[in-house]
Formats: sequence, C-alpha cells, structure tokens
Amino acid sequence: MHSHRPLPRLAFRAGAARDGSRELPSEVAVALSYNGSTHAVMMATPADLEDFARGFTLTEGIASLDEIESIEPVETPRGIDLQIWLMQAAADRQAKRRRTMAGPVGCGLCGIDSLEEAVRVPRPVPASDFAMTPEQVMEAIAALEAHQPLHDITRAAHGAAFWAEGGIVLAREDVGRHNALDKLIGALAGRRPAGQGALILTCRTSVDMVQKACAAGFPLLIAVSAPTAAAVAMAEAAGLTLVALARPDGFECFTHPQRITLQEAAHVA
Amino acid sequence: MHSHRPLPRLAFRAGAARDGSRELPSEVAVALSYNGSTHAVMMATPADLEDFARGFTLTEGIASLDEIESIEPVETPRGIDLQIWLMQAAADRQAKRRRTMAGPVGCGLCGIDSLEEAVRVPRPVPASDFAMTPEQVMEAIAALEAHQPLHDITRAAHGAAFWAEGGIVLAREDVGRHNALDKLIGALAGRRPAGQGALILTCRTSVDMVQKACAAGFPLLIAVSAPTAAAVAMAEAAGLTLVALARPDGFECFTHPQRITLQEAAHVA
Repeated sequence: MHSHRPLPRLAFRAGAARDGSRELPSEVAVALSYNGSTHAVMMATPADLEDFARGFTLTEGIASLDEIESIEPVETPRGIDLQIWLMQAAADRQAKRRRTMAGPVGCGLCGIDSLEEAVRVPRPVPASDFAMTPEQVMEAIAALEAHQPLHDITRAAHGAAFWAEGGIVLAREDVGRHNALDKLIGALAGRRPAGQGALILTCRTSVDMVQKACAAGFPLLIAVSAPTAAAVAMAEAAGLTLVALARPDGFECFTHPQRITLQEAAHVA
Repeated sequence: MHSHRPLPRLAFRAGAARDGSRELPSEVAVALSYNGSTHAVMMATPADLEDFARGFTLTEGIASLDEIESIEPVETPRGIDLQIWLMQAAADRQAKRRRTMAGPVGCGLCGIDSLEEAVRVPRPVPASDFAMTPEQVMEAIAALEAHQPLHDITRAAHGAAFWAEGGIVLAREDVGRHNALDKLIGALAGRRPAGQGALILTCRTSVDMVQKACAAGFPLLIAVSAPTAAAVAMAEAAGLTLVALARPDGFECFTHPQRITLQEAAHVA
C-alpha cells in the first residue's frame, strides 16, 4: 500500500474551473490485535506499521518492549490487521484487562471507560539533565520541514520527530497526530533513549499527546501549534517541559522552563 | 466551566525570555452516558454540551432526535458526565448493541470493532437540488473567521459551520474537530434542514468526518484543509460533494461537482 496517491479534482480560481489532480494521503483502517483479539481500530496512513504497533503497545501501557514477541501486518480487503503477539504473562494481563472493561468505550482514549482514567496524570518524567538552548529549539523547528516527505507531497500529514545531539535523528508521519507519535515512539524504542532528547510535534498538544509523551519518557515536548489548558496542567504535574507555538523565530514555554537554558545559550550553541 | 483560560508562559524571542500569559482552550473529559451506562469518554471543550450530546447520538446512529428524552450535563471533579436518557425502545437497542460488542474497541470510531465497520460507506446523501456558486464558496470561507470566537482568542480551536440562504447561519467550536461537527449537527437537528445547506469545516477531512456529514444529510462539505484519499472515495460513493483546500480566492472540488454551479454564477450571486 502507498502512503499517498493522486486523485482527480477540479480547481476553481479566478472564475474558471480547471481539471487536474492532487496527491492525497492514504488513510486505511488498521486493527491492533493482541494474541488474536482485536483491541482497537484506528484510521492511519499505511506506512511504518510495525513502529505503530510497537509504539501504541507501549504508550497505551499494554506491554513492555521485551514482552512483544512478534508483529505481523496482514492486509485484508477492508484494511490492515496488525497482529501483535505478546509473551504469555502480558497476554494474560491484557485479556484480564479486557474482561474487566464494560463494553464499547474509549473513543480517542483506547478502552478507558471513566472520567477518572481519562485525565489520569502520567508517571512523572524520569530525572534527566537534558536541556536545549533557545537557538536549538528554533533550529529544530526550522529543520523539521526537511523530515516531512509525506507532508511535502500532500500538505496534509502530521509529523512527530526526535531531536538529540544537535539535530533531528528520526521522524514519522501519519494522517493522525496520535499515530505519528506512536510510530515515532515505536521506532525509537530500544534504540535511542527518549530521556536524552526532545519530542517535536507539528500539531496541537492535547492531554492525550502529553500522556503518550510521558509514557515514552521525553523530558521536553516542542509543538508547532498551541496546547490546551488541560495539557499544560498535565505537563506541569508530570514534570514535562512544554514548549509550544514554536516557530523558527520564537516560541513559548508553558511548564518547567529549566530545560531551556537561556543564560548558557552563547556557551552551548 | 469556561471554554478558555489564561495560563502563564515565558515567550522566547530575539534572545530574550519575557513573562506573560496566553489564553488556551479548555479541554475536559466528557462522558456520554445512555440511560445510566457510559458509552464513550471524549476530551472536549466544555461549551454547547447539549448540542454535543444530541449530535453525537445522531451521527453515531445511537438514536433519532425524537428518541432522546432528556440530556443533563453533570459536573464531576474529573469532568462532565453527559447523562442522555433515551426512550425505552432506543435504550433497549443501545443496550443490545453494547452486549454484542467484544470488549474495549473503537478508538476514534466509537465502539466499532471490525475493519469492515470502520470503512462502512454511509447512507447516500438524500436527493437535494442545493448548489452554490464558486463565489458563494469563497465568500463562505471568508465569512468563517467571524464565527470562530474561541479560535479568535486561542488560535487553537476547530470550527464547524452551516451555510444556507446566502450566509453562515450557525457555527460551533471545540478543541476536537469531531466534537465541533457533532455540536453543529446537534444544534441544527430539528431546526434547520441539513439538506438545504453546506457544511463548512476548518479542518482536514478524514473518513470519519465524511461519515458524520453523511449521517446528518449535508449534500456539500467545504473544508479549509485537505482531505484524505479514503475520504474522497467515501464521499464519491455516498454522493457527497467534497470541496477542500478552500480559501477566499479559490478551492478544489474532488467529488460530485454538479453542486458547484460555475455557469450560473453570474445569475445567482
């Protein structure tokens, strides 16, 4: 499957309609199945699906990396079934969790059936001396564009990137912002320590993005768009540095600004 | 509860950090409960919640407007419980539907547990002779800004509006694009015929937005941002005219362009 394809369209401009086509991002139904049982169905861009399976499993607290035995994307006429096989202990835990849940709940929140759970404060960000200068934050945002090939083509995909050691080291894209983040987290898992870098998002920061960022252990989140008030409160409580409205010429920091080292800018940069 | 509030932040620009504050949209956990059972929990902006309950109930096919007996938003320390009471027949149907569902599924898709269901083609758009000239489409987009008070303040809210008889007649906003659409549909229900106007969205068009638009019966959807390829395919199949990348000076039409009356522009406008 391709992550984008051209579709015909009429372009209306200056009093005339012209035939043509536009590249649009693919969006397919992707089921996440654990040891044979479907847990969730998401609409996603069919690329980096093993990263997606790994990241979703981690950020939703379903299993740890070493409990994932295998991931197999199976194409069906209606979409992709991501068949994830967990080690027995994790599979049993997941099956038990399913049984204690009361029916079809959790839109956007993946099986969470109470208000309490929906706004749970994530585990605090682990201690980390990671910091960036303001110049590095702005450079990171300026560099982001070069890491969004799907967005380049379609102007309609979200991106999530990991910045460490002076540059963007990894990025993932999807039509869904949660999926892009899960793909990035899955791609990083076991390869790069999230605690030694910054998460960069092209999208707005809502509470579920903060929950996923904290689950992965990023100390610093930099978003191009604005956060919600609840996302700021959650980042504050979890010890996450939340930077938003980040542009190549400036940004705003809402929580834990000690990881933005203004004074030492000249020394570090 | 307020739909936005000011939060302190440090603004970094031109080598300096300045104290200040920024208005951010509120985002609270909102449970949708039917006759005492929680069906879903969404993160939403706490405004127009009865519209939200009504629209969600309609677009998710849970009940028709005249089957809704009452809606009562109950504030709790952790969020808002939208207690929706259905007439007995609808409540029985919903309870049966819950029992036949297999566990916690449906992230973003509200209780749909199969790939088949996720990409279901909605019922076709009812026959409608509604049409707009290209000039009206561009005017509608230009007029949209005046109907987004929350976005004006926060620069971080999605909007959904209804255009009919020469202008925008109703608009709703939310941090979530699905919620904004459900609120609009709930506000229109029983008051304005969706078949005699156009739905205008500030966001991208994914398949779930097309499904909700068709469930409400809009013949024409105009979005500021791009659609996904799957959304175009679904709009084509359902008979929905899909306009996207709509700006005050031009737009693109992906499906069923007969509702954009290019030739008659001079007569109608």
